[in-house]
Amino acid sequence: MTNKNYYDVTEWPVGNPYEDIGEVINSIINDIKQRQSGSDGKPGAVIYLPPADYHLRTQVLIDISFLKIQGSGHGFTSSSIRFNVPENEWANLHELWPGGSRILVDLDPSTTDEESDGAAFYVAREGNPRISSVEFSNFNIDGLHFVDDGSGEKNPENTYVNGKTGIYVASAQDSFRITEMGFVYLEHGVTIYNADALTIHDNFIAECGNCIELRGWGQASKVTENLMGAGFNGYTIFAENFGGLLVTTNNIFPRGASSISLSGVTKSSVTNNRLHAFYPGMVILDENCSEILVSSNHMLHDQEPWAPMQHRDNGLDDLYGLLSISGNDNSIIGNHFSETIDQEALKPAGATPVIIRLAAGHGNYVANNNVVATEIQSGSGDSAFSAQVDALLATEELKKVAVTTVLVEKSSTQNTILDSGTNEQIVMDKTVNAFRATPVVPAK
Amino acid sequence: MTNKNYYDVTEWPVGNPYEDIGEVINSIINDIKQRQSGSDGKPGAVIYLPPADYHLRTQVLIDISFLKIQGSGHGFTSSSIRFNVPENEWANLHELWPGGSRILVDLDPSTTDEESDGAAFYVAREGNPRISSVEFSNFNIDGLHFVDDGSGEKNPENTYVNGKTGIYVASAQDSFRITEMGFVYLEHGVTIYNADALTIHDNFIAECGNCIELRGWGQASKVTENLMGAGFNGYTIFAENFGGLLVTTNNIFPRGASSISLSGVTKSSVTNNRLHAFYPGMVILDENCSEILVSSNHMLHDQEPWAPMQHRDNGLDDLYGLLSISGNDNSIIGNHFSETIDQEALKPAGATPVIIRLAAGHGNYVANNNVVATEIQSGSGDSAFSAQVDALLATEELKKVAVTTVLVEKSSTQNTILDSGTNEQIVMDKTVNAFRATPVVPAK
Amino acid sequence: MTNKNYYDVTEWPVGNPYEDIGEVINSIINDIKQRQSGSDGKPGAVIYLPPADYHLRTQVLIDISFLKIQGSGHGFTSSSIRFNVPENEWANLHELWPGGSRILVDLDPSTTDEESDGAAFYVAREGNPRISSVEFSNFNIDGLHFVDDGSGEKNPENTYVNGKTGIYVASAQDSFRITEMGFVYLEHGVTIYNADALTIHDNFIAECGNCIELRGWGQASKVTENLMGAGFNGYTIFAENFGGLLVTTNNIFPRGASSISLSGVTKSSVTNNRLHAFYPGMVILDENCSEILVSSNHMLHDQEPWAPMQHRDNGLDDLYGLLSISGNDNSIIGNHFSETIDQEALKPAGATPVIIRLAAGHGNYVANNNVVATEIQSGSGDSAFSAQVDALLATEELKKVAVTTVLVEKSSTQNTILDSGTNEQIVMDKTVNAFRATPVVPAK
Repeated sequence: MTNKNYYDVTEWPVGNPYEDIGEVINSIINDIKQRQSGSDGKPGAVIYLPPADYHLRTQVLIDISFLKIQGSGHGFTSSSIRFNVPENEWANLHELWPGGSRILVDLDPSTTDEESDGAAFYVAREGNPRISSVEFSNFNIDGLHFVDDGSGEKNPENTYVNGKTGIYVASAQDSFRITEMGFVYLEHGVTIYNADALTIHDNFIAECGNCIELRGWGQASKVTENLMGAGFNGYTIFAENFGGLLVTTNNIFPRGASSISLSGVTKSSVTNNRLHAFYPGMVILDENCSEILVSSNHMLHDQEPWAPMQHRDNGLDDLYGLLSISGNDNSIIGNHFSETIDQEALKPAGATPVIIRLAAGHGNYVANNNVVATEIQSGSGDSAFSAQVDALLATEELKKVAVTTVLVEKSSTQNTILDSGTNEQIVMDKTVNAFRATPVVPAK
Repeated sequence: MTNKNYYDVTEWPVGNPYEDIGEVINSIINDIKQRQSGSDGKPGAVIYLPPADYHLRTQVLIDISFLKIQGSGHGFTSSSIRFNVPENEWANLHELWPGGSRILVDLDPSTTDEESDGAAFYVAREGNPRISSVEFSNFNIDGLHFVDDGSGEKNPENTYVNGKTGIYVASAQDSFRITEMGFVYLEHGVTIYNADALTIHDNFIAECGNCIELRGWGQASKVTENLMGAGFNGYTIFAENFGGLLVTTNNIFPRGASSISLSGVTKSSVTNNRLHAFYPGMVILDENCSEILVSSNHMLHDQEPWAPMQHRDNGLDDLYGLLSISGNDNSIIGNHFSETIDQEALKPAGATPVIIRLAAGHGNYVANNNVVATEIQSGSGDSAFSAQVDALLATEELKKVAVTTVLVEKSSTQNTILDSGTNEQIVMDKTVNAFRATPVVPAK
Repeated sequence: MTNKNYYDVTEWPVGNPYEDIGEVINSIINDIKQRQSGSDGKPGAVIYLPPADYHLRTQVLIDISFLKIQGSGHGFTSSSIRFNVPENEWANLHELWPGGSRILVDLDPSTTDEESDGAAFYVAREGNPRISSVEFSNFNIDGLHFVDDGSGEKNPENTYVNGKTGIYVASAQDSFRITEMGFVYLEHGVTIYNADALTIHDNFIAECGNCIELRGWGQASKVTENLMGAGFNGYTIFAENFGGLLVTTNNIFPRGASSISLSGVTKSSVTNNRLHAFYPGMVILDENCSEILVSSNHMLHDQEPWAPMQHRDNGLDDLYGLLSISGNDNSIIGNHFSETIDQEALKPAGATPVIIRLAAGHGNYVANNNVVATEIQSGSGDSAFSAQVDALLATEELKKVAVTTVLVEKSSTQNTILDSGTNEQIVMDKTVNAFRATPVVPAK
């Protein structure tokens, strides 16, 4: 290693990366800071983690710009499936754990009150300029275990609670990149405050309590191409007070209390995603979200087929809407909704499920959305994978079920609803909203 | 190389990577398996291929999770153009072959009946868990030559047949990644059975008989950002029995018997792609494909301008439809179709070409699609590149041609067709389908 | 380094990479050419730049295929913000410059008339085949300073003029890749002539006079996932005479005289982008652009909130249109427009701003576009970041303003306008265009 700004954690003389990668990386960062101490000539560095199991017992503190931390393998495997295999079968498994360039988060958040203390990587810097261009690429952060949360869950590994976070960015930052990473069994995958020009691209973030949380405020960022699915009690993508957010080309699978939840977000896009969820409230625009484009998304709601999780839900009933909007001047155009209904499990009983709900606000434009609502096929399975595939691939002709494709609440007015349901499928006050029904197919 | 899980093929003591990279990689995999032999502590490894020509005479067998195989160059160049340059001009060419980190597939599939025997990389593992997180990144797999297939093709290099496959995944797998790769002159680029959470992103897969085949069944995967074009007789993207597939942001060029062909696929998205083809049947939803969103795609059909391929087609006539749908409850929203027609070459002669065809099924929603149909400009060329560009860029005012923008066959009913053609352009039974015509522009 | 095709610039015996990286890379390229001198066996090479500051005093000349130049850090930080901080505060800044694997472009273009002489990387090769598969990945090209352009700008660092280009590709090429790069303070970021199957993906190109210019002609390429913003006087994305271009999933922020400007482009897609601009003329389809799909984009126009740039504009008035189209048979479907208006600053005074303008041509299809036009909130700021975020996040109920959502000029005819504005909001000759108004919301 003749150049000074390339570090391989397995070659660094301080600490033992397999025992505590946190100590090693912090020591490397300290070395960078000592060598790049002026205000000029601070190119940063790259820290390389070859594939290996790296226990992390000390939190990594990042307060320098232009640091890249890179592995050679996102290393995801399903810990959720493994932890729901009877223990006497574990000996027959090829492997028990995620892999790749893998950080094993051995922090103990139960000893602290601060959420950020449970983060493997903690990024913060005050003053100017904002910390810039920190990049995380192609390694795995594994929270290892969920824990008993007092809820009575028989298998504590299914709680999605452990107080651990993968990457926590506490201060305003610019042009960060998180790409090709794997996150698993963390209560929070990525938590970022006050983002600008952030890229979260092409990651695998699953079996985490929450996947991506963009807190505080932010602008001009993108969340793209990610494979994601949060726990039944958490956010898959959450953002608040954000302008110019582009959420696109993600494939989001269950569970997730919500797939995409926006609060006070404006002038942003949720387009061209594939979303699958087991509960209503898949996409929530709340707290006066405004001027958001929701288009070309495929949203599938069906029922949990996997036995260990079938007692779970997110507490919302079938009148909540798969897409719920409290806010003004949003455009909901050209989305496909697949609603798969178990008539006997409707909440409240006998309810007509709602697909798009305008809960409050005004001036929303809802056009050319197509809703397909069918009765569920029976069947559940022991294997999350085979049960889901079976449910997805049912291709016999399914019985159609009545739904409210658009419900406009009294607290939402001056909206325009076009070609998003027949006259019978839409519930609204036509004296305060504009409306054109989808033409009706002549009766068979 | 002080860390054990990083392998450079040029430094491995067993075999000669330039003579048989297969022997070298298999030896490395064997080393990994011996060192990581328990069920715990199996992070996998990365195998690095610096740019070079690596002959492969032994198939690589992958049966471990968390293996990354990485090069430094996708190395595509057009072998098709080169093999159609007269041999006496070859001496003047800067280079004859693809490059980068390049695997030269020197297998001889003619000696075997098994398709998978012709694969450079063969991935299979039985038992649990499914093999996970194998990653292929940024190298080239070159099938070298196509061969005489008995069809009478004068130049055997134009047959797209040689029995070779780049990557063949035979068993159910999870969270695989294929990114930044180059595939060229293979009969099958990527063939994967039973995929879950698969990423095929940002690759260059061209001049292959077939590019991507997702066989068996699968779920929750993405095929994104690829530059692709198959042979005249093959699939560019094929998937069967898949749920939750996201095919988006691809730029697919000719030839390809089809650009995207789905069979028994449900609840998936084909959105936001740019597709260009020389034959009808560009996008085919078959075998009861249901609840698929096809939106925001640009689909261009024009005529083969390159002399060596002008005698080829895919056997479909102009009544087949550029987009053909056999299935239920699909949403076809907001697509643009450019149909460029040679009136004298129409099949059957004098036919009115069909753009969107609902061949069978019911409940499809077709809205806001725009069709532009013009007469072709004459001209063909010796160079595939210049001929295509000339054809694409014709900007003089083109003569409009009559087409059927939507044909609803008798076997497809209960569909809704909105703003996707004028009354004259749509052929359907209005007693069993819903309809609203695009308003007519007043006559000039 | 036992393999010959991997080069680390810090280990190369010729030249000093920190003093003149151009001399070093040219020497390496010369070595590759000498070693790979036949027409067979030319895999190319990878040149690695670890994070560091590399001055470039000699232009890099690339004339070989299969060359990858790779760093470990895109290294963007805002030089624009820094250069507008009072100099007496600079000592308090954590860092003054961009970083990562950073090329400092120390060329002096003022001594030459040729634009290409100011390029850090110049790619050209005549003859056949076209130069292929050159890849640039994950490093930074920094033009360092803008200069006095005689315009009277008080701070020369705000002119966006310095004659420097990051990457300049002069001859026809195939399958190039530019990914994960950072470009800053260059008059031209990426300039490419005659592209085929080009990938410009996931880059950060900002504070450049112009970001991406695709000149000459080209086909079948993609510009995707980039974070970009040009200077007030330049192009963010420009393309001419291109067929089959896919511009998607980009997040484009101000300034940029235009966000996307196409000239003579055909059969291409501008879909699913998020665009934000301070001036009219955000997206321009000019010189007979035809058969282009513009869909699912979010386009926001508001007012410059940052004091140092508030005297700037692009010279276009509010009647020009946010989206302006001169050409035939384009499809404008399902876009959201947010127009934020300062009534006192309208040009011409008292004008009704135009959103979509069909300036010339015929046969365009404009459907399901939604326009939200509101009065601006007052306020500007010293910090570009906080001012922009404040402006973006104003969530109180904003006063609606009258706009022309679609203006069809007399020189554009035979167009179809559907559901893209009420009868009052659309200005067109209904005797030569087809029209259906968005239903009107009943008066409050």
